[in-house]
Amino acid sequence: MKDYVIGLDLGGTNIRAAAVNREGEILHRVKIPTEVPLGRERVIANILKVIDTIKKEHKGLKLSAVGMGIPGVIFFDKGIVARSPNFPDWIDFNLRERLNKYLNVPFYIDNDANLAAVGEGWLGAGKKFNSFCMLTLGTGVGGGIVLNKNIWRGEYGMAGELGHITIYPDGHPCNCGNRGCLEQYASATGIVRMAMEENPPSPPFTKGGKEGGITADKIYQLAKNGDRYSLEIFQKMGRILGIGIADLVNILNIELFVLGGGVADSWNYFIDSAIDEIKKRTYRITGERVKVVKAELGDDAGIFGAAYMAMKEEISNSR
Amino acid sequence: MKDYVIGLDLGGTNIRAAAVNREGEILHRVKIPTEVPLGRERVIANILKVIDTIKKEHKGLKLSAVGMGIPGVIFFDKGIVARSPNFPDWIDFNLRERLNKYLNVPFYIDNDANLAAVGEGWLGAGKKFNSFCMLTLGTGVGGGIVLNKNIWRGEYGMAGELGHITIYPDGHPCNCGNRGCLEQYASATGIVRMAMEENPPSPPFTKGGKEGGITADKIYQLAKNGDRYSLEIFQKMGRILGIGIADLVNILNIELFVLGGGVADSWNYFIDSAIDEIKKRTYRITGERVKVVKAELGDDAGIFGAAYMAMKEEISNSR
Repeated sequence: MKDYVIGLDLGGTNIRAAAVNREGEILHRVKIPTEVPLGRERVIANILKVIDTIKKEHKGLKLSAVGMGIPGVIFFDKGIVARSPNFPDWIDFNLRERLNKYLNVPFYIDNDANLAAVGEGWLGAGKKFNSFCMLTLGTGVGGGIVLNKNIWRGEYGMAGELGHITIYPDGHPCNCGNRGCLEQYASATGIVRMAMEENPPSPPFTKGGKEGGITADKIYQLAKNGDRYSLEIFQKMGRILGIGIADLVNILNIELFVLGGGVADSWNYFIDSAIDEIKKRTYRITGERVKVVKAELGDDAGIFGAAYMAMKEEISNSR
Repeated sequence: MKDYVIGLDLGGTNIRAAAVNREGEILHRVKIPTEVPLGRERVIANILKVIDTIKKEHKGLKLSAVGMGIPGVIFFDKGIVARSPNFPDWIDFNLRERLNKYLNVPFYIDNDANLAAVGEGWLGAGKKFNSFCMLTLGTGVGGGIVLNKNIWRGEYGMAGELGHITIYPDGHPCNCGNRGCLEQYASATGIVRMAMEENPPSPPFTKGGKEGGITADKIYQLAKNGDRYSLEIFQKMGRILGIGIADLVNILNIELFVLGGGVADSWNYFIDSAIDEIKKRTYRITGERVKVVKAELGDDAGIFGAAYMAMKEEISNSR
């Protein structure tokens, strides 16, 4: 009997999932609301509902394993959610133990940014590379490091916090406790803050300000229309991103950097500054071979990554 | 017949070498001048002389392989010295090919900082850990990253340039082309420069200045005697080192950091600031488990590392 796995992406708003076969084809998709405000039991019931729905659709196929990506601090080995920004009451919560009662297939979880990197490595921008870093430039900056085709998780699953590389030691305070983290500049939040902080304030941002609903997307639209203040913000963001990537080049001698997340759509306005900065801050021998490319799988990277991780783990654990 | 390997450390002043057995015991040591000014052929003759001397001492034992550490950009796979600060005319020089004519055992080279990490991982401060970073705080700052018991060399052997993590994007220019590199602050050179740059100048450093021969060791002696300016320099250096280590924690989730090199002797005067800074700049869950320890093998780390690398490569290549 042919088999398949289920990859899930547990977001704060929706649970997105797909049945995926070993060739990386999506057989079926499901998306339902996560319903966080209705409590943990409801979220768990929703996860199980998604899995059941998919299983019912594929009665002729064997489900081998389930993988799921969750934002936050995930202990991959134990299947524990240590902390997650979307689920404040899930503290050191053994999700695997909780779900194992209902599932009769192996269940694996990992940090969503790690799994986005795994997905891009399997089927997307990283598939021809053994090693690469992925940076997800969204509300914050997530990261995943793939070394020799394996995600590098570190001592207890906390590796790849690339958004928390220090750029400016005395810079803007970050939620993580550090100051001047990459995430404070190379994210949608960071772009808005940099725009609002300009002193003297740039004309387009004084009109509305925060109350006027200045967003990273509006700044992007302004840049598109040639607004030089907005273009400067993206150039600044690009330079800062370049500093972070240069650190990764100097530390890991990695050649490929894959950029995903909504902010990556502003590509044309930041990429030149980023590449210029990478070259300035690395040895010529490493810097000139660095490739920075766009992620290819969009929102599906995490689902594919969850599926692939589950597939790989199930194979290595059943040996 | 019992076998052994030779580990060499090719420095700018001396070639240091030892015959090492599989248990990590040094059977014999040799040290002769490198004689760089007499040209490349002379240096090569000296390397061969060291190997011959050791071989003659161990006629009853079988030499299995030779390993050597060299500062600079080394292409480990090919045995090529791409660039070395100590040997300016060795550019893309295939040292392995050159020596293979004379040696009838496998010959391996790697960056000296990488091999110091390998040595500490085999017999020193890292031996109980699967993964750690070593920072060699000397004239510059060298680095080596051990992941799951293997040195991480990156795409072409340039990984572990930990001295070139950017601390201050607009900081002091570095030879590597970057600005504000860790090496510009956490090295002997950096300590002297920070002391000289104090404005207004601190009394102990105005007396002599550079011409008066202010060295990192003198600043260390002053700190020992309670001089508050010197103590402040080391605290500053510690904080900056902590920023760099915090980056490595956030990126790699590594628990152990081994500090070697002459500057590490000033341990008592910088370590508290370093640890304080690491904790501030990492997640509590990772930061509180970070251990920063002194290297244990001193100058021998590189020799042991070269020997161990040769041993391991010879085993894996003869399979």
